Amino acid sequence: MTPEQFRQHGHQLIDLIADYRQNIAQRPVMAQVEPGYLKAALPGAAPQQGEPFEAILQDVDQLLMPGLSHWQHPDFYGYFPSNGTLSSVLGDFLSTGLGVLGLSWQSSPALSELEETTLDWLRQLLGLSAQWSGVMQDTASSSTLVALICARERATDYALVRGGLQSQAKPLIVYVSAHAHSSVDKAALLAGFGRDNIRLIATDEQFAMRPDALREAIAQDLAVGNQPCAVVATTGTTATTALDPLRPVGEIAQAYQLWLHVDSAMAGSAMILPECRWMWDGIELADSVVVNAHKWLGVAFDCSIYYVRDPQHLIRVMSTNPSYLQSAVDGEVKNLRDWGIPLGRRFRALKLWFMLRCEGVEALQQRLRRDLDNAHWLAEQVQAAADWELLAPVPLQTLCIRHRPAGLAGAQLDAHTRSWADRLNASGDAYVTPATLQGEWMVRVSVGALPTEREHVQRLWERLQGVVLG
Amino acid sequence: MTPEQFRQHGHQLIDLIADYRQNIAQRPVMAQVEPGYLKAALPGAAPQQGEPFEAILQDVDQLLMPGLSHWQHPDFYGYFPSNGTLSSVLGDFLSTGLGVLGLSWQSSPALSELEETTLDWLRQLLGLSAQWSGVMQDTASSSTLVALICARERATDYALVRGGLQSQAKPLIVYVSAHAHSSVDKAALLAGFGRDNIRLIATDEQFAMRPDALREAIAQDLAVGNQPCAVVATTGTTATTALDPLRPVGEIAQAYQLWLHVDSAMAGSAMILPECRWMWDGIELADSVVVNAHKWLGVAFDCSIYYVRDPQHLIRVMSTNPSYLQSAVDGEVKNLRDWGIPLGRRFRALKLWFMLRCEGVEALQQRLRRDLDNAHWLAEQVQAAADWELLAPVPLQTLCIRHRPAGLAGAQLDAHTRSWADRLNASGDAYVTPATLQGEWMVRVSVGALPTEREHVQRLWERLQGVVLG
Repeated sequence: MTPEQFRQHGHQLIDLIADYRQNIAQRPVMAQVEPGYLKAALPGAAPQQGEPFEAILQDVDQLLMPGLSHWQHPDFYGYFPSNGTLSSVLGDFLSTGLGVLGLSWQSSPALSELEETTLDWLRQLLGLSAQWSGVMQDTASSSTLVALICARERATDYALVRGGLQSQAKPLIVYVSAHAHSSVDKAALLAGFGRDNIRLIATDEQFAMRPDALREAIAQDLAVGNQPCAVVATTGTTATTALDPLRPVGEIAQAYQLWLHVDSAMAGSAMILPECRWMWDGIELADSVVVNAHKWLGVAFDCSIYYVRDPQHLIRVMSTNPSYLQSAVDGEVKNLRDWGIPLGRRFRALKLWFMLRCEGVEALQQRLRRDLDNAHWLAEQVQAAADWELLAPVPLQTLCIRHRPAGLAGAQLDAHTRSWADRLNASGDAYVTPATLQGEWMVRVSVGALPTEREHVQRLWERLQGVVLG
Repeated sequence: MTPEQFRQHGHQLIDLIADYRQNIAQRPVMAQVEPGYLKAALPGAAPQQGEPFEAILQDVDQLLMPGLSHWQHPDFYGYFPSNGTLSSVLGDFLSTGLGVLGLSWQSSPALSELEETTLDWLRQLLGLSAQWSGVMQDTASSSTLVALICARERATDYALVRGGLQSQAKPLIVYVSAHAHSSVDKAALLAGFGRDNIRLIATDEQFAMRPDALREAIAQDLAVGNQPCAVVATTGTTATTALDPLRPVGEIAQAYQLWLHVDSAMAGSAMILPECRWMWDGIELADSVVVNAHKWLGVAFDCSIYYVRDPQHLIRVMSTNPSYLQSAVDGEVKNLRDWGIPLGRRFRALKLWFMLRCEGVEALQQRLRRDLDNAHWLAEQVQAAADWELLAPVPLQTLCIRHRPAGLAGAQLDAHTRSWADRLNASGDAYVTPATLQGEWMVRVSVGALPTEREHVQRLWERLQGVVLG
């Protein structure tokens, strides 16, 4: 494709995306296709000769679109908001179009420096002190893996340059809330700790980690000769957006020299609102924190921000310095390859920079406040309605709800819950996520898609009341 | 930014990128800026109010462009080709514009199925048997980390669900060529093996791993009670594109039940040419292989393809199954979250699909053959010229060259080499990568940027002969 063809087809594609976003409400939210539908419709091999661009666009429309669940839809309440603000979309377009890579500062200086600058802007917006330095990762799964590897190495005085985790005499222990995200468990396993060395700390009635239970678990491990290594606290758990109490957890971590990693993948976005900052009171006691700017905040996926208080731990673990990557300025610059797992890096800061400049901070704050208001309005309706339950506090924008007709419990109630959630999703009118809480099925309603206004949430409430009738 | 504003600014951005690609040859290849130039030029905080899009475009032009090293430039011979074919760029635009996520098949079925289909197309193009299944990762660094974690777990009968690597009695050993990429060493360290347990296997005069040295190292480890675990072989090493002999290495791996991971990040692209397939004769003996489709092949970064022979090892290690990600079709579909570290996934297959369909296989083959011819032409000039040396075979498109005037050796020769390479890069006329080989500095010339034609390579040769004169 020549630049002139790109110009022509690029304009077509911009219009396609503008139309898609403009008319998205007309589509069913959830894909209504069967497994294997697309594989069966596509040819078995790549074409030998190039095809006209129009043929591809036709397949996008006829084959792909029906197989998408539309995350940017106003009636999308599934999983979590993954907002691709259109300004950040354009920033990402520029990144892909330029096609430059950040292997080192020298391999594209603006790439490294814009990431440093925009992450410092974001740091200020989140209310973090100037002690923190940030780097963009792909997802919180990777950020948490990086955190636990750094914790492992700090606890062993950097055994990676000797015998690694294999030479560790006392088992290293990781403490997580029983409500931590599945990626935390996965990260601990990938980092080599082993499931036997992960302690699931009990939670209180609000599903937040109990500091007394953490302290007790640490004492038990010390008593049998284990070595407490790291604790992962969550601000905004996946199921209920519960808030682990960072200050007491952080004080325990400091007392026992544990690495404190804070998973704020979801709630981190809310920290641009001063009235929400109480949620991570104590954050300055942490060693690392992850905030997914690609969730509620609105940066096009992927843009997971990993902040650390002391980058030297990260650099000691991640640094590589082969001759072909050395340059004369190495001592003066931040080489981002030493801040994570991948060597190659896109110009990812562009999408954050475009969004912050195009929208401005106040508009972002206003949108998040709109979503909080909408979620609290819905919570009030649920609480006031007969036969409906709100199963957890709503500090943010996620509700855990259940319709419980009189007399229904146990397996029957579970069946009812899953049945109406499936009916609602299959209708295409709205998309919610069934999940379990304390062993029972409920439905998560995650408010905060970009185009979701009060009218949509009101309509959702009407639909919920209708769909439970069968 | 509303869809209508997006439409307007999107058209502006398309034109900006089309112009950039069209006129890129007029720019100096390497950024000519000082460390800190951009940080100093940008405001210290994000704006409270949104700014006009034009203000951002102006900063792109005046502040960012001078700070880029232009990887898509016809005179770019640095590192490796990172080709962002414009058709794949459009595929990536669609991915970002749609903003759908692949947490599970259900969360956007077309995303998962298109990845499965296009990676099967690519498998066929690479000449891999139907035994292989693929998944997209971000970079080879991540793919190799995944491979070594899987190797670790297979060797310990999945100790991750018990005591992890901490419970391992006999040290697990990883074998790599002394010419393996820095990411292989990094992956082994991150996976917890420890540097003491990484064996650097000696290479032959062509910088390829010596199977006899591998066999000997394994025997020595067995003799002292260590447990050989994995071997990483490279097709196309970073310094010289050396080719480790996969068949004998694979036979040794099978004999000792080692996991064989093949790093074909660079050379993998060449496997779409049947005449290059001898380079990975024996690949079917491997357990995993990584091919960076975002390098020479031309898919916009990031698109690292990880193929495995038995996905069950991968899934056992990477699988998570919390209630909020379960769906009725789980048994019937491929859930890509179980195929790598991140949970969230972009619709990355679009960029590969767009490229394969727009360009067609024959055009891709033709472009790679053009680059091989150009590299071989340049190699002939270097070999025929007085005072020039070609320091390694040129099976692919990378040359290791040195200008050695009579009488110059040791530190003086190194100083001469670094000096002319720096002068060339600083001139902006071409971009090459100085690196060390056997302890001495040389210059890598990596041919294969999208717009690089014979005329550019001829001009490079003239410039090389001029720049060494001082």
